[in-house]
Amino acid sequence: MPKAAKAASRRRAGAAKRTRARRDPEVMALKLKPAALSPAMAAFFKLSAGRLGFVPNVLKAFSFDMTKLEAFVAYRNDLMLGHSGLSALEREMIATAVSAQNRCFYCITVHGATVRQLSGDPVLGEQMAMNYRAARLSKRRRAMLDFAVKLTVEPWSIEESDRARLRAAGFADRDIWDIAAVAAFYNMTNRLASATDMRPNEPYHAQARAKR
Amino acid sequence: MPKAAKAASRRRAGAAKRTRARRDPEVMALKLKPAALSPAMAAFFKLSAGRLGFVPNVLKAFSFDMTKLEAFVAYRNDLMLGHSGLSALEREMIATAVSAQNRCFYCITVHGATVRQLSGDPVLGEQMAMNYRAARLSKRRRAMLDFAVKLTVEPWSIEESDRARLRAAGFADRDIWDIAAVAAFYNMTNRLASATDMRPNEPYHAQARAKR
Amino acid sequence: MPKAAKAASRRRAGAAKRTRARRDPEVMALKLKPAALSPAMAAFFKLSAGRLGFVPNVLKAFSFDMTKLEAFVAYRNDLMLGHSGLSALEREMIATAVSAQNRCFYCITVHGATVRQLSGDPVLGEQMAMNYRAARLSKRRRAMLDFAVKLTVEPWSIEESDRARLRAAGFADRDIWDIAAVAAFYNMTNRLASATDMRPNEPYHAQARAKR
Amino acid sequence: MPKAAKAASRRRAGAAKRTRARRDPEVMALKLKPAALSPAMAAFFKLSAGRLGFVPNVLKAFSFDMTKLEAFVAYRNDLMLGHSGLSALEREMIATAVSAQNRCFYCITVHGATVRQLSGDPVLGEQMAMNYRAARLSKRRRAMLDFAVKLTVEPWSIEESDRARLRAAGFADRDIWDIAAVAAFYNMTNRLASATDMRPNEPYHAQARAKR
Amino acid sequence: MPKAAKAASRRRAGAAKRTRARRDPEVMALKLKPAALSPAMAAFFKLSAGRLGFVPNVLKAFSFDMTKLEAFVAYRNDLMLGHSGLSALEREMIATAVSAQNRCFYCITVHGATVRQLSGDPVLGEQMAMNYRAARLSKRRRAMLDFAVKLTVEPWSIEESDRARLRAAGFADRDIWDIAAVAAFYNMTNRLASATDMRPNEPYHAQARAKR
Amino acid sequence: MPKAAKAASRRRAGAAKRTRARRDPEVMALKLKPAALSPAMAAFFKLSAGRLGFVPNVLKAFSFDMTKLEAFVAYRNDLMLGHSGLSALEREMIATAVSAQNRCFYCITVHGATVRQLSGDPVLGEQMAMNYRAARLSKRRRAMLDFAVKLTVEPWSIEESDRARLRAAGFADRDIWDIAAVAAFYNMTNRLASATDMRPNEPYHAQARAKR
Repeated sequence: MPKAAKAASRRRAGAAKRTRARRDPEVMALKLKPAALSPAMAAFFKLSAGRLGFVPNVLKAFSFDMTKLEAFVAYRNDLMLGHSGLSALEREMIATAVSAQNRCFYCITVHGATVRQLSGDPVLGEQMAMNYRAARLSKRRRAMLDFAVKLTVEPWSIEESDRARLRAAGFADRDIWDIAAVAAFYNMTNRLASATDMRPNEPYHAQARAKR
Repeated sequence: MPKAAKAASRRRAGAAKRTRARRDPEVMALKLKPAALSPAMAAFFKLSAGRLGFVPNVLKAFSFDMTKLEAFVAYRNDLMLGHSGLSALEREMIATAVSAQNRCFYCITVHGATVRQLSGDPVLGEQMAMNYRAARLSKRRRAMLDFAVKLTVEPWSIEESDRARLRAAGFADRDIWDIAAVAAFYNMTNRLASATDMRPNEPYHAQARAKR
Repeated sequence: MPKAAKAASRRRAGAAKRTRARRDPEVMALKLKPAALSPAMAAFFKLSAGRLGFVPNVLKAFSFDMTKLEAFVAYRNDLMLGHSGLSALEREMIATAVSAQNRCFYCITVHGATVRQLSGDPVLGEQMAMNYRAARLSKRRRAMLDFAVKLTVEPWSIEESDRARLRAAGFADRDIWDIAAVAAFYNMTNRLASATDMRPNEPYHAQARAKR
Repeated sequence: MPKAAKAASRRRAGAAKRTRARRDPEVMALKLKPAALSPAMAAFFKLSAGRLGFVPNVLKAFSFDMTKLEAFVAYRNDLMLGHSGLSALEREMIATAVSAQNRCFYCITVHGATVRQLSGDPVLGEQMAMNYRAARLSKRRRAMLDFAVKLTVEPWSIEESDRARLRAAGFADRDIWDIAAVAAFYNMTNRLASATDMRPNEPYHAQARAKR
Repeated sequence: MPKAAKAASRRRAGAAKRTRARRDPEVMALKLKPAALSPAMAAFFKLSAGRLGFVPNVLKAFSFDMTKLEAFVAYRNDLMLGHSGLSALEREMIATAVSAQNRCFYCITVHGATVRQLSGDPVLGEQMAMNYRAARLSKRRRAMLDFAVKLTVEPWSIEESDRARLRAAGFADRDIWDIAAVAAFYNMTNRLASATDMRPNEPYHAQARAKR
Repeated sequence: MPKAAKAASRRRAGAAKRTRARRDPEVMALKLKPAALSPAMAAFFKLSAGRLGFVPNVLKAFSFDMTKLEAFVAYRNDLMLGHSGLSALEREMIATAVSAQNRCFYCITVHGATVRQLSGDPVLGEQMAMNYRAARLSKRRRAMLDFAVKLTVEPWSIEESDRARLRAAGFADRDIWDIAAVAAFYNMTNRLASATDMRPNEPYHAQARAKR
């Protein structure tokens, strides 16, 4: 076996070991054999582990298939971290309020923690997780969440008047797309997490509980 | 201007012309300036136009941003066309039944047409679009749709007993992932389409109306 | 047996043969022995068959009892074809939108086809069948359908303000009665069809699919 | 004017006077000019007034158009008084439970009174009007009302298993038709009454309040 | 045994006899051994029996534990009979409308009777019990009931605008507390009654049926 | 002024000062003038402040009227702290799950914290606050919460079969009363808190976040 092939084989073995650990029943209720991580995903997992101290279970759940994992990560990262008229915090507020509406244990936990972290305001995270109407929000953010939650509960009744309310609150058409896209995306992940009984990594619960 | 640059400029001009047409109010309610298509997306649009006779409006709607468009197409194509224990028809049946539950004009139209096409059975397409319970389905398909629709309506109440029902109907854990992933995805696209008043291309309506 | 009695007997035998065919499992889930058609109903069936190419299954379903069939036909024909400030198309739009709200396979099929036929606009039929809010309607028709669908979903909350909205859209009190009566009637037939698993005659599905 | 014509004219004048009284705001919220009663309807009104002491407001509401009134009365009388495997009391129990589900003031009042009257049990009438599940019913009657109320609330989810439950409770297919037809009919009248703010004649409230 | 002890023993025996009668299956579905009535509660039962002719079953249901019974009676009596900007009738109207929303057989019966009694208007009692929107109420009372019923159905969506509507209808902040407290309390008792299948004493049904 | 009267006057002045602070907008949206605390309530506030570090806002909210405050405290303390077959933790689990169902910011916060504290398991608190179905519970506790949440959502449909399920899970009739009484009580307080926009004291949020 030439040197490069051996290295590749070792890498794969290492990946397999890492992924075997992922069969942990604490990830989800489905038993899916993890695939070897692609180099891009191995790097992304490493990055996540470095930043958070662990690899989020949603990534482990998807890692039975590299194509699916990469597609999910690409879509998610652009949506939540890419350029937008909405701040990262605003996008996480939408994620949490939508997940609360859908009573998704995994997603409320993860995004509630992120709201606490990004805002430095633990109460805001709890309000998004419990009832966003209890938060004292700017008109802009209230309109944003009203749209996101209505879109979650009765998408069939969204109409031009709903978009007009967003425009009146200062949002451009591109922002409306982003509000809709974030709300829609968490309506997807909430259902994927609920369908598979995905379990949030425990450290999330204690994160960012002190006011900054 | 060197030759290559001129060619690139011409290509971009052509793309711009193609995309300008896309501002057609019949695509969606948001006014978003189309970006120049990336080569991959230009090829995909060409392929779609060739196969269908038109570029689906959902692709035009996303084409204001190539990163978003490519991420959407990658996720969607793997999900609906990639390897799975579910046939392409079964995935489209889920897409249609979920869209019907969410009363999404765009998605019922598109996926109802695809069900008619793939099954050669126009009545089946109508049943998925109106009330999937009216179709006389195999136990397998009925269990699949019951799960997908429950996941749509009350994701918070999906539990092990629901997954057990799928297993009893012959589905492996990987299939359960796919059922969940397809149902979840259309809960996303339904909301994106409803939020933006996306309009289905008119040819869908008449497609595959005759029994094969 | 005198001549007249013989003729009557032959007529009844013919009717019985025609009705025996009606036991077709494709009519409904209840097994009810068809009665001999009364002369009026035999004529009406003949008329329907001539006009449509078949006898609608709802008529076959009712034909186990001539009193019930005749009462149903009388009520229905006056309501949908009699004098009214609402056009026949408008009444069929209400019928379809109400049936879509109740997810009634039989009635969406039949009345969606009729909307396509009367309007010459297949897209309008699909919009009524999927989500009437997606159609670009006049204020008058939108108000009419909003009232009909609210009356379907939460009849207990209809109040003077709802009637006032209809009047503001140009409807007289007699028109309001007609909107209410049509919406109410399809709330009846939707339930009768769903309770008995009534199956629409197949030709409806392909009818009037081309734009006129 | 010949004698017969004069008599006819006098009859019509009498009818007009009777009907003018009907414009009483206590009938409904729509102002519809009463038509002259047809002889059949004049007789029926007289009969009702004789039996009840008054003409039920639903009849007055319909009396702006003799065709509509006659069609309604014919359909209703056959349904509620005609031959059936369900007793008149059972049909009225369905009418009341359905009307309670739809919170229809007019219909709960009228049919609750009729249940009290037919059963001689004022508590049974109240239970049908408030929550039929509180009544201690035979299995047969409980199955009948469960079907009727499910058909009222979510008609789209009625399936063969629901009909099977009725058969297991002793109902023949013809009885199932009748249960469905009565439940469906009151889903119609509830909506007509709510849409027009129909007011029950006051005497109903005190009727049959003592146990027999 | 000294004299005083004997007397106490006799009192307890009398109480035990009175309470044994309370095991009547017509009180509720739970079998809970009645405790000896405390002197305060014995007096209150006597008072109730004197005023009403019977001891309300809710009191009998609670009488398995004197602490619970006394706490319930104290809270209830202050709420419904204590000083308030709302009249006793208004508080009973809220109680009835909330109970109707929750379809609680026990509470609709009891409070519907009390509304009839306090108002002298049997129709008003029926309207509260069936659909409060059918009553022709003052703006004040309509606003009061709208708030109470919204608080019952979707408490999470009550906001400052809802309180503002009450203020606009003339209510002070203390009145708003009372409206909320009464509506909230019957959301409690409705559930306690439904959970235990509590049965209203029969005499309620016939009470105050004649207009005063 | 005699000595005792002076002391009483000083006490009252002290109470008034303490209560004036209570007008803090962070308590609730209604402006109600706090009354002087009764000796019993002054002692209870002191006890609470000692144990928790603060006086819970619900107590401050009620303190405009000593009769109401005392009745509330008496009912609540017996219910949550008195003798019962349910542990204090189990009662708090019901309180949290019910409050989550009603999306009550105040009550989820307070009772979620108490569940974390009593159980020493911060994840259990979060599960009760987000979706109790995500917790891995004993059959007993799962049955208990299923009953409590069904009673919250559709009290009208609780029947003998629901009580039978509790008995099968090991609960006696007295326990069923307690489950019902706790669930019912938080359906009351949730609504009182939502109606008045009651705000939880901030320290709750950070309490008991570490696993014991």
